[in-house]
Amino acid sequence: MRNFKVALSQYSPSIGNIAQNAQNMLALAQQAQQQGADIIVFPELALIGYPPEDLLLRPSLLKRTQQGLSTLQQAKDIIMLAGYVHVDENGQRYNSAALIKNGEILGIYHKQNLPNYSVFDEERYFEAGHQHLIFEHAGHKFGILICEDIWIEKNTQQLSKLGVDTILVLNASPYEAGKPQQRQALVSKLAQQYNLNIVYVNQVGGQDDLIFDGASTVINGDGEIVAQAKLIEQQMLYVDFDAQHKKFISQEKPQTLDTIAEIYQLLVMSVRDYVNNSGFPGVILGLSGGIDSALTLAIAVDALGANRVQAVMMPYTYTAQISVEDAAAQAQRLGITFGIAEINPIVNGFMQTLTPFFGNSPADATEENLQARSRGTLLMALSNKFGNLVLSTGNKSELAVGYCTLYGDMVGGFAPLKDVYKTIVFELAKYRNSIEETPVIPERVITRPPSAELRPDQKDQDSLPTYDILDAILYMYIEEDLSQEDIIQKGFDADVVKKIIRLVDRNEYKRRQGAIGPRISSRAFGRERRYPIVNGWTAGL
Amino acid sequence: MRNFKVALSQYSPSIGNIAQNAQNMLALAQQAQQQGADIIVFPELALIGYPPEDLLLRPSLLKRTQQGLSTLQQAKDIIMLAGYVHVDENGQRYNSAALIKNGEILGIYHKQNLPNYSVFDEERYFEAGHQHLIFEHAGHKFGILICEDIWIEKNTQQLSKLGVDTILVLNASPYEAGKPQQRQALVSKLAQQYNLNIVYVNQVGGQDDLIFDGASTVINGDGEIVAQAKLIEQQMLYVDFDAQHKKFISQEKPQTLDTIAEIYQLLVMSVRDYVNNSGFPGVILGLSGGIDSALTLAIAVDALGANRVQAVMMPYTYTAQISVEDAAAQAQRLGITFGIAEINPIVNGFMQTLTPFFGNSPADATEENLQARSRGTLLMALSNKFGNLVLSTGNKSELAVGYCTLYGDMVGGFAPLKDVYKTIVFELAKYRNSIEETPVIPERVITRPPSAELRPDQKDQDSLPTYDILDAILYMYIEEDLSQEDIIQKGFDADVVKKIIRLVDRNEYKRRQGAIGPRISSRAFGRERRYPIVNGWTAGL
Repeated sequence: MRNFKVALSQYSPSIGNIAQNAQNMLALAQQAQQQGADIIVFPELALIGYPPEDLLLRPSLLKRTQQGLSTLQQAKDIIMLAGYVHVDENGQRYNSAALIKNGEILGIYHKQNLPNYSVFDEERYFEAGHQHLIFEHAGHKFGILICEDIWIEKNTQQLSKLGVDTILVLNASPYEAGKPQQRQALVSKLAQQYNLNIVYVNQVGGQDDLIFDGASTVINGDGEIVAQAKLIEQQMLYVDFDAQHKKFISQEKPQTLDTIAEIYQLLVMSVRDYVNNSGFPGVILGLSGGIDSALTLAIAVDALGANRVQAVMMPYTYTAQISVEDAAAQAQRLGITFGIAEINPIVNGFMQTLTPFFGNSPADATEENLQARSRGTLLMALSNKFGNLVLSTGNKSELAVGYCTLYGDMVGGFAPLKDVYKTIVFELAKYRNSIEETPVIPERVITRPPSAELRPDQKDQDSLPTYDILDAILYMYIEEDLSQEDIIQKGFDADVVKKIIRLVDRNEYKRRQGAIGPRISSRAFGRERRYPIVNGWTAGL
Repeated sequence: MRNFKVALSQYSPSIGNIAQNAQNMLALAQQAQQQGADIIVFPELALIGYPPEDLLLRPSLLKRTQQGLSTLQQAKDIIMLAGYVHVDENGQRYNSAALIKNGEILGIYHKQNLPNYSVFDEERYFEAGHQHLIFEHAGHKFGILICEDIWIEKNTQQLSKLGVDTILVLNASPYEAGKPQQRQALVSKLAQQYNLNIVYVNQVGGQDDLIFDGASTVINGDGEIVAQAKLIEQQMLYVDFDAQHKKFISQEKPQTLDTIAEIYQLLVMSVRDYVNNSGFPGVILGLSGGIDSALTLAIAVDALGANRVQAVMMPYTYTAQISVEDAAAQAQRLGITFGIAEINPIVNGFMQTLTPFFGNSPADATEENLQARSRGTLLMALSNKFGNLVLSTGNKSELAVGYCTLYGDMVGGFAPLKDVYKTIVFELAKYRNSIEETPVIPERVITRPPSAELRPDQKDQDSLPTYDILDAILYMYIEEDLSQEDIIQKGFDADVVKKIIRLVDRNEYKRRQGAIGPRISSRAFGRERRYPIVNGWTAGL
């Protein structure tokens, strides 16, 4: 048993761009080799990026993958373990890892456990592998697992029986609150239980609605966490195995963040990656004087810098003067481009055309929606003219119950708070204010009662329960799948529960047309929660 | 071997409403019993409806299913074969058929082949069964298959070896052009090959983006099609087995439709079911004088009747007088509610607010989008005020390349032409005009060159190739997954192909926020084509 150095490439791929990823991975391998690494481990499917979705169904995948692998084979004097899509002679696809050294593919491992739940659709694309791949280096026996494989204990058990001392795990494990801790606890427990060293490499970066948080980890056979890559950042982590003491040499680990700080930083990364990877010069958003847009603005500035962020306050008759003041104060504090665009002439234009149709109908939500849609169209016009992406500022609580206007405040290409309940919005805002001496969100924005300001003296709580109650009910219904009866039995008001559940069900059509946004929960709206729009479930009670 | 009568219940379920479906199925069983049927066969998952999607993950599914099965067990003196979700003692779900008679569940069959491709996600929800269920009645041996099972030949082969003479197949097979013929050819071939009678029962009705066309069929062991239910309609089909001649007695079959007629009728059904099952009083749409909105209007009137359809012409400076004339003429011909709403005051309102921001920027797509979004917001205001659902009138070709305005002409809850290429739009319009003496779509609407009328003298063909070329390229890229190189090699202009493919890739974000619409192709935008928004595939060429 000899010393060796392993490089964990916590890599952020460009999804689908195999040629570019191959070049990047080659450069990283050469860099690691120069640093003396014996082995470099990349994340799951690093060559195409995770999740490639239906790009996998394109027949040209095979040719591109072969070209990508050829590029990787140019690396010299380092063992490369690279995630890629293997296409066999029958056209079957596998989620695989290639073991490459000096131009040769020494072995191929196919992922054995394919997740097909939550955000995962791997059975749509892949066949499962049925055997382990073991290789030797420096007197060590290495085993390979890919993501879901490590969650199924028999795989680790089998590798242990096969005499492996170190497992290399390639992952693309999406974030949700609590997930980094859960992963680390699992891997640490397995390491200890089977007395195995585990090298766990995760993808990093935002991809559409998914966040990959990185946090790649190395664990000794006694369960000790030896080294950990940073959350969020693309990074190469080098770890040395000390053959004399039969363990990896421990190194300083990054400071851990509490969950709210972690979520905040990941939302920032998610916005940055979406905007940059889509090629937008910057973002624009509507600043209302409320907390959602204030927090979104803070996230945008942290993601892109003030010079890439534009905000517009769009007051109307019902907008309080303090809303305008607070919006302007925050914009000034952050140094972003800020403008005020009155929507009265627009709403008047609509009413001029609509009055003959409306006749004497009393005012209702229609007129409120007109305000929201005038604002949405204004933002889109500014986006079209100057090229900035519109950020939608809605949160999960309002999206759940449809307390938002389709084509109005819902416009935008990306919705940073889409999976953030209102009660968490408050915590994130307070967190952000706590990390700088001068708060970036005016205190009054956090303390005043939330209002859509679409009619005189309107408050969110006029039509909804308080947000702590609303969010508790939503969490039980959405994240925990509890039934109406179950929730009522926990002591919530029956009428309130029924109303909320009816609203969640009825507003599926709105959510279906909403912007994507980063997933931070265990049940985000989007690919993870597939509900029919025409849905008789609740009516059938 | 004795005579028997089988009832094929081509049923249209309310998705998720188990209690209501159970009552309806019980009534249908009692009706069949009164007509002398020995056996009634319902579609796949009839008790909850197909596809139930993530409703299946709700723990209360088990209790509701048990209640539903209790209702079904009230049927007397008839054998019932009912599709439902079986939940076993470990909480595992199966896509199952219950064999019920006089209050007893005599047997349960679990679907063995679970589709997890195209629009199907059955591995997300179900475990696969591993054994056949055979039952005897009137001296016959019956086997059971569920949908995908019949497409896997070994299942029929096994039933044949087990001595079965008649297979009962429960289906929820979604429509795509050519699918009814494909199904019938398959079933007929299997019947003949194994000398088996096959009773094929399909769900009928629209559910969100899926169309179930019905067309339930009975086939004798010699491959002869004995009986067929109508396309589109909920229906009970009775077929008698003549023991003396060892075959089902042949009966008159409905007239077959050609594909264009079939698509038209199914789009009508799909609109009707979406609107009625969502509880809207009617629909509203923007009539532009162009062919897409004209066809959508004809479909809406056929689906709901003229008194439930409202159309608005929303002219602007660039709207040709003949557009207004043609729109009005069609509205009058169909007898719908029609109004004209000038958008000039609205666009002027926007420009008044925007001019200080725009400065001296030259006019571009921004100003065009403002027109489209003013119209979209007008339609939504009329929808909000009077309750009608907005139909979006865009077609598949323009949605593919993004030749449409998000939050503008894309607004709406349902998009009848979403999966219809522009070349097919023309065929459907001509078909609809052919079936009545006075055409419902003014001839000029069909013959004029298509234009969005967003700037002076604009024609679609200024920015796009002719629609026959555009659609040919789109079909190869979207439906057939051909690569850019493959398509160019077929003789299409390289620059045109590259431009179109780039547009398809870049406009995923728009499609993701578009309304759902009925699927008629083998690759519809939506749940069937899951592409990343941030996507480096084409850039990686």
